[in-house]
Amino acid sequence: MIVTVTLNAALDVTYTVDRLEPDTSHRVRAVHQRAGGKGVNVARVLHGMGRAVTCLGFTGGPTGDAILADLGTAGIAHAMTPIACESRRTVSVVSRATGGSTLFNEPGPSVSGGEWQAFLEGFVRAARDARVVVLSGSIPPGVPSDAYARLVRAAGDVPVIVDADGMALREALPASPAVVKPNRAELLAASGHMDPDAAMHVLRAAGARAVVATFGSEGIRALTADGAWKARLTAPVTVVNPTGAGDAVAAAIAVGLEEGWGWQSILEDALAWSAAAVAAPLAGDIDGRALDAVRRLARVEVV
Amino acid sequence: MIVTVTLNAALDVTYTVDRLEPDTSHRVRAVHQRAGGKGVNVARVLHGMGRAVTCLGFTGGPTGDAILADLGTAGIAHAMTPIACESRRTVSVVSRATGGSTLFNEPGPSVSGGEWQAFLEGFVRAARDARVVVLSGSIPPGVPSDAYARLVRAAGDVPVIVDADGMALREALPASPAVVKPNRAELLAASGHMDPDAAMHVLRAAGARAVVATFGSEGIRALTADGAWKARLTAPVTVVNPTGAGDAVAAAIAVGLEEGWGWQSILEDALAWSAAAVAAPLAGDIDGRALDAVRRLARVEVV
Repeated sequence: MIVTVTLNAALDVTYTVDRLEPDTSHRVRAVHQRAGGKGVNVARVLHGMGRAVTCLGFTGGPTGDAILADLGTAGIAHAMTPIACESRRTVSVVSRATGGSTLFNEPGPSVSGGEWQAFLEGFVRAARDARVVVLSGSIPPGVPSDAYARLVRAAGDVPVIVDADGMALREALPASPAVVKPNRAELLAASGHMDPDAAMHVLRAAGARAVVATFGSEGIRALTADGAWKARLTAPVTVVNPTGAGDAVAAAIAVGLEEGWGWQSILEDALAWSAAAVAAPLAGDIDGRALDAVRRLARVEVV
Repeated sequence: MIVTVTLNAALDVTYTVDRLEPDTSHRVRAVHQRAGGKGVNVARVLHGMGRAVTCLGFTGGPTGDAILADLGTAGIAHAMTPIACESRRTVSVVSRATGGSTLFNEPGPSVSGGEWQAFLEGFVRAARDARVVVLSGSIPPGVPSDAYARLVRAAGDVPVIVDADGMALREALPASPAVVKPNRAELLAASGHMDPDAAMHVLRAAGARAVVATFGSEGIRALTADGAWKARLTAPVTVVNPTGAGDAVAAAIAVGLEEGWGWQSILEDALAWSAAAVAAPLAGDIDGRALDAVRRLARVEVV
C-alpha cells in the first residue's frame, strides 16, 4: 500500500469562460470541482492505475467536506485529519477562446499544534502498513517548516519520496529521504546551482538517497546510489494540460519502489505516466490510450 | 417592514492579487466572502440604515450555509427557502497594482417546481407583514420567467419595486409593479428604444406605475403618475466601487414608499444613498460620512 500526504490539500475549481478579459464581468459557462493538491493527484493516478493507496492530509470546513466527498466519489481511500480552519480552494479560469488557463491559489488554512500532533499520530499508524510514502506540495501555516524531515524519520524503514520545493525540500534532506523529485526550477533553487548536474549532486550530498529531476519536454534525469540516468521520449507527445505531470512521475516512482524495480524500469514508467498525464485534461488523470503509445517512445540511458 | 427577494442569491468572494495576468498562476493574498446578490445588498443597505428588513430567496448546499451564516453575522433577518442544488458563488479578483476588478459569475442553481411553490407560500406569508417588497436580480433556472409578475400579484396591495433586466423585467410589467428601476442599458434593452425618455414612457405604458432609471454619474430620472423628475449631484463624488449603487437606489425608494414620501424626497435620498454607496469599498455598504456630505449636493428638478 502506498500512502500519499497532502498537507495543503485543496478543492480545485475550474471555471470555463468564453474569453478572459481583465477588468470585465464574466459569465461562467461551466463549473467543475474536485479534490486536489499534489498528493491527492498522486493518489488519483495510483488509484487509476489500480494501486492500493491512502490519502493523508488536513481538511476543514465545508470546503474540506467537499474534498472528502469527492475522494469518496472517486473511490480513493483517505484518512484526512480534521482542522478547525476551512480548507483552501484553487480557481482555474479556462478561456474557451485561447485555451489558456489562469490560476488563483488561495492561501492554505492555519493548522494548530494539536492538529499537527493528531496528524503525526495518524501518519505513524498509516506508515506501519505502507510500502512507500509520498510527501507532496507546500506546508501550510502552523506546521513546522521541517515537517517533511520529521515525517521521513517517522516513516522508519519505509521509503519516502519528497516532492516539494524551497525550504520544505531543503529541510527534508538531512532526514535522507529515499527520493526527492524536483522540477528544474525547484532543483536549481534548492541547490543554489545553475547547472542541473551539479545541483543534483548537491541534493544527494545534503542527504537525498536519490534525486529524480523533471525537465518538462526534455525528459527526466536521475542521480542515485546505482548511477546516473537520462530518460526522454523519442518523439513529441500531445500536451493538453501540463499540470500534474510531476505528480504522475512521483506516482510511477512510488510503484517502482513498492515493486522493487530497478531505476531503468522506474524511469521508463515515470516518463510514460508523465506523458499520458499531460495528454489528459485534468491533473491526476491518465489517458490510458496515450499510455500504450508513449511507452514505446521511452528511452532511458545510463550517463 | 421591507421584504427583499433574491431568487439568485450568491456567496460573493473577493480575491486580492498583486496583479492579474492572464495565463499565469496567482497567489491570492487575501480572501473575503459575504452574502450577496442584488436583493441581499438592498437588505444590507436597509439594515445599515436602521430599517427593519427580511431577506427571502433560495439557498442550498454548503455555499448556501455560508450565505445564511453571513446574514446571521450581519444581523440581517432572513427566511430563505432551502433548495437541493448548491448556491452559486461569484469571484471578484481585485488587482492591487491597477485597482481593477475582474468578476466571474457562476450560473445559478436549478430550482425545482416544489421549491418554487415553497418559496411562493413563504413569500405570501412575509408579504402580509410587509409595507414594501423589493424584487432584485436575475431568475434562476427552473423558476418561471414571469416569476416577478406572479410575485407582484401575490403581494396584493403591498407596493413592489422590481430591479431586473431583460425578460425578467419585461414579463413583470403587465402585473403593474409600483416601481421598476432599470439602469440605462436595461431601460433601453427592455423598451427597444434608444431614447431614454421614450423608453421610460414605453415601460409605463406596458404597466409600470413608476419608472426610476439610473444613469451612473449623470444621475437619476423618474417618470411617475405625478410627473417627471431629473435628479443629479451638483459636484462629482469619490467612486471606490460602483457595484451596489443601484441597490442603494432601490433601498432608498423602498424607504420612501414605506414612509409615504413624495418623489422629490425619495429621489434626493436615492441620489445621496447611491453616492454614499459607491464611496464604500463593498456593495451593500454605505459610507456614513459620505452620506452627510453628498446629501447637500443632491438637486432634484421637475422636468
